Amino acid sequence: MLAECGKTRVLCTVSVQDQVPQWMYNRHAGGWLTAEYSMLPSAGRPRKPRDGRTGRPLDGRSFEIQRLIGRTLRCAIDLAAMPEATLWVDCDVLSADGGTRTTAINGALVAMYDALLWMEEQRQLPKWPLRGMVSAVSVGLVNGEAMVDLDYHEDSSAEVDLNVVCASDGRLIEVQGAAEKRPYTMAELQQMLDLAQRACADMRKLQEQALGL
Amino acid sequence: MLAECGKTRVLCTVSVQDQVPQWMYNRHAGGWLTAEYSMLPSAGRPRKPRDGRTGRPLDGRSFEIQRLIGRTLRCAIDLAAMPEATLWVDCDVLSADGGTRTTAINGALVAMYDALLWMEEQRQLPKWPLRGMVSAVSVGLVNGEAMVDLDYHEDSSAEVDLNVVCASDGRLIEVQGAAEKRPYTMAELQQMLDLAQRACADMRKLQEQALGL
Amino acid sequence: MLAECGKTRVLCTVSVQDQVPQWMYNRHAGGWLTAEYSMLPSAGRPRKPRDGRTGRPLDGRSFEIQRLIGRTLRCAIDLAAMPEATLWVDCDVLSADGGTRTTAINGALVAMYDALLWMEEQRQLPKWPLRGMVSAVSVGLVNGEAMVDLDYHEDSSAEVDLNVVCASDGRLIEVQGAAEKRPYTMAELQQMLDLAQRACADMRKLQEQALGL
Amino acid sequence: MLAECGKTRVLCTVSVQDQVPQWMYNRHAGGWLTAEYSMLPSAGRPRKPRDGRTGRPLDGRSFEIQRLIGRTLRCAIDLAAMPEATLWVDCDVLSADGGTRTTAINGALVAMYDALLWMEEQRQLPKWPLRGMVSAVSVGLVNGEAMVDLDYHEDSSAEVDLNVVCASDGRLIEVQGAAEKRPYTMAELQQMLDLAQRACADMRKLQEQALGL
Amino acid sequence: MLAECGKTRVLCTVSVQDQVPQWMYNRHAGGWLTAEYSMLPSAGRPRKPRDGRTGRPLDGRSFEIQRLIGRTLRCAIDLAAMPEATLWVDCDVLSADGGTRTTAINGALVAMYDALLWMEEQRQLPKWPLRGMVSAVSVGLVNGEAMVDLDYHEDSSAEVDLNVVCASDGRLIEVQGAAEKRPYTMAELQQMLDLAQRACADMRKLQEQALGL
Amino acid sequence: MLAECGKTRVLCTVSVQDQVPQWMYNRHAGGWLTAEYSMLPSAGRPRKPRDGRTGRPLDGRSFEIQRLIGRTLRCAIDLAAMPEATLWVDCDVLSADGGTRTTAINGALVAMYDALLWMEEQRQLPKWPLRGMVSAVSVGLVNGEAMVDLDYHEDSSAEVDLNVVCASDGRLIEVQGAAEKRPYTMAELQQMLDLAQRACADMRKLQEQALGL
Repeated sequence: MLAECGKTRVLCTVSVQDQVPQWMYNRHAGGWLTAEYSMLPSAGRPRKPRDGRTGRPLDGRSFEIQRLIGRTLRCAIDLAAMPEATLWVDCDVLSADGGTRTTAINGALVAMYDALLWMEEQRQLPKWPLRGMVSAVSVGLVNGEAMVDLDYHEDSSAEVDLNVVCASDGRLIEVQGAAEKRPYTMAELQQMLDLAQRACADMRKLQEQALGL
Repeated sequence: MLAECGKTRVLCTVSVQDQVPQWMYNRHAGGWLTAEYSMLPSAGRPRKPRDGRTGRPLDGRSFEIQRLIGRTLRCAIDLAAMPEATLWVDCDVLSADGGTRTTAINGALVAMYDALLWMEEQRQLPKWPLRGMVSAVSVGLVNGEAMVDLDYHEDSSAEVDLNVVCASDGRLIEVQGAAEKRPYTMAELQQMLDLAQRACADMRKLQEQALGL
Repeated sequence: MLAECGKTRVLCTVSVQDQVPQWMYNRHAGGWLTAEYSMLPSAGRPRKPRDGRTGRPLDGRSFEIQRLIGRTLRCAIDLAAMPEATLWVDCDVLSADGGTRTTAINGALVAMYDALLWMEEQRQLPKWPLRGMVSAVSVGLVNGEAMVDLDYHEDSSAEVDLNVVCASDGRLIEVQGAAEKRPYTMAELQQMLDLAQRACADMRKLQEQALGL
Repeated sequence: MLAECGKTRVLCTVSVQDQVPQWMYNRHAGGWLTAEYSMLPSAGRPRKPRDGRTGRPLDGRSFEIQRLIGRTLRCAIDLAAMPEATLWVDCDVLSADGGTRTTAINGALVAMYDALLWMEEQRQLPKWPLRGMVSAVSVGLVNGEAMVDLDYHEDSSAEVDLNVVCASDGRLIEVQGAAEKRPYTMAELQQMLDLAQRACADMRKLQEQALGL
Repeated sequence: MLAECGKTRVLCTVSVQDQVPQWMYNRHAGGWLTAEYSMLPSAGRPRKPRDGRTGRPLDGRSFEIQRLIGRTLRCAIDLAAMPEATLWVDCDVLSADGGTRTTAINGALVAMYDALLWMEEQRQLPKWPLRGMVSAVSVGLVNGEAMVDLDYHEDSSAEVDLNVVCASDGRLIEVQGAAEKRPYTMAELQQMLDLAQRACADMRKLQEQALGL
Repeated sequence: MLAECGKTRVLCTVSVQDQVPQWMYNRHAGGWLTAEYSMLPSAGRPRKPRDGRTGRPLDGRSFEIQRLIGRTLRCAIDLAAMPEATLWVDCDVLSADGGTRTTAINGALVAMYDALLWMEEQRQLPKWPLRGMVSAVSVGLVNGEAMVDLDYHEDSSAEVDLNVVCASDGRLIEVQGAAEKRPYTMAELQQMLDLAQRACADMRKLQEQALGL
């Protein structure tokens, strides 16, 4: 699944491994989902050194993003209803121009849906484990005004950067708002959240289209 | 500075190094601030393997938290008004019982204030660079009700976990709200944010007391 | 540049960095070219652990291949005629089905040609440094018969695996032939080399087409 | 257990893990004890880079000290009389001003005693495994004269640095004497050892007080 | 087994471990052979930093060579006829003056033969698993002429560098020919291969002598 | 320099690098000496995993020994009288049968002497910097009796293990005595030290013979 949003392109795949992590052995607690996120060296400008080649500590930003992806996808699925298997979600950014983390979440949800359909065909699923869609958008405050889907250039001039992940009923799964240039008021947060919820609903339709639902 | 909140104890120190990171050389862009966060192996139960001893990848959670600490403290200070120096903020958790990240931010702000006072005495500061206080609280939604400063036990049963960092005028610097058990509504978010803002104001008074202001 | 050969897909990019490696400082010896090769975790089956995430030693096979790519591309270019810059060649395998190393070389040559055209437009090149094309093919011996471009399935049953890199005049740049199932005779090697040379000439035409030459 | 000696402060904890290391599996050889020693980045001046964050090799001095701590504590205890469990001894230096290794040993012994008392209460101990106290002191030769418990300043000017670990009957468990400024004579070593033995006896009384014995 | 070729000296040892790698557990697929190659820091000039001490990525060249050694030795032996054991082949270069990889292969074959004789004496071998000798030589093209066993000085001026591994019947196991200064023709390759085959036959006699056959 | 003591063989080399470590730049404080110690995987039984290949933490014992070697050799030489250069001392254990650290020190001293003679011939030394010999022996207490140069088998049954490094006038440079089976008395320590001093004098004669003095 190649998720695109503007010039941002993220390759999202889900692999099924017939094993759960070691800490879940013998617990009969269902399945697990783990996500990894990485950016190819050539995805942005200037070129970024490749993870794990230079002995330097791993990239903290990538870690933070893959934890977010894993956390939100695990919200969408009833892991206890899964067989003893691990869903490996890989999000590899081929080209980066803002919004890579939200593009990754949206694409990963679609890839996961596909993987679950495949498992169902293989009769590996006792019941359909997906609780609903998960959609993500990023909203920025530019000159005091909320805007969605900023590209890299707009993003650098945003005063506030807000990432929102919504469930299919519009409820919130994750809200991350960081002051980039100045603190922000409650009213500004409210304005951004309203825009984000509407944009998540639009995104959900695109995901459903991609899945042919 | 030993910051305590319930049974959580975090040793926060700020060291001044007469040098900026390599990427700032020859830019005359002022100073820099970098934060590191780590948990001692014996801080919680069960004992956690020590970072960097076993060749395993570094702990993603620690990375995420130290990025948050650095980001929020850099909001509190006018780095361009600093001399060419790096403030190294170290937050080491000696004992963990919930709320380590917010306790670390609150303690680090106090330690940074102290370090800046020392720099001023040494006549190293062209002008006072602090823009104001920064205070952090964590709020949880337990049985649909917002509560502050959950200990580890309460925290594990919370439905939503919200961390909020406020400036001294009550405006927001960082909002991070994650669904732990179920998605949450806008109204619930609003309720938690209101409580968080009030608790940040109380925390600011405690920080000012600790500094003798 | 996305190089495809059968189901194998390799993303090849060349980035220009205005700096040579440390060991070339102050030598006025022209430019440098360095190549990195990596396979995405999801490129093959089963999923492969991600480089540099688990603290395990880096993948020896990837190292071997990126050394081959760098060596053969450096043969194609007169580095002494380059300005003091490094060409970073990144070959990332998105999907693997046999022949990833030769596909990577062929795609990288095209991407390098493009990068040099861009440098020429920017008037960064004192003279055109490319000495000629470089084309690569892999040949296998299956049931005693030489065949080109084996997919993964055919490749696993090949008795001998031969990778050949040719210059545009048909001369050899690299020959790597490994017995997979049994030693091979001089006559068999000769048969495979003849096929490889013809296939390299065909590949060169495809590369020229891709470049619009 | 926070062990203090002058301005040196070392947090010593002992955690009980219901498992022995892999190489002891199925040997029914009793328990094991392993020690780790680390200095917080802010413990001394100038600030020291954090272990395991920069990809650099681990600190050889810390390794040497933790091996010493483990070796001497294993002398104090009859591991064969222990249940199949590992005692994890963590010594984290919060503030360093000379004598961190001996302070760590003295504090760790007290913490281990406490942990064994707790195990006894839990009825986990078939018999009391401690053979006796272990006390450590460091002695320096300053201007030809033996002195105990040097702070960092005195320590840097010492001609010889001697660390001694004694059993409760005054016998020697470990003697490490290194020429810092000049070789030393047998007579000087004798003088230092005599002082060390007396100081170890004093230290043992302090440890017993801390334990309320 | 200390293999010498000119001033090149390689210590080759084979250790027998009563265990196969984890991925072979419960497969009853016989034994395994794994090779490691490393150069002592002082083997060449200038001194080379020691592997694994500086946190830098491992040496790609060493990886490539140890993969070659393992691959060619596994060709010489019928692993399915071995008991469940791993042969660990260690090739440590004490002194390097050209041809370290071929010297390592030749010495390792002799050491492996010795180890198998020892296993036979211990009655650990159901049948003799060696299929035959394996011999390696490196050939260079200097001023258009093929020459064997170049020392470091000659090697640096060679136009082409060819490593060849032969079975005892003269058939080829591995051919690796890299253009160092210029591409080479089929005729030149043929000339080098002929010389290599003759030199391999001579080498086989030296190996047999060393084994007292 | 291949130092042998019983079946223990240690390859000791000293390389001269025209550079001091980074922390000595621009201090005009003379030269530096740094030592590295490592054991080949095949040096002992069972085979030991190779340093730096498996991502595991480096071997604490090797670290401890190389710190000892560096410290004692720096005692033997007036570094301030050296030109701005680093002496790299490499001690690689080819075969281990007890006493590797003392054999390494004795061999390294001889290799360093040789390297200094070479530097003197090259007229790189303003004055002869060696202060005197350094000799090392290990002494064990077996059944209450002091013995020198234990092999691996005797060493494992020793009650106390004492390593002593002496200057040429018999004064002490390093004393490291560890209780292996039981604590030891002052009288026993005295008995071992007397034997060690005599053995160091004998060792010094062997070193002088090796150097042709």
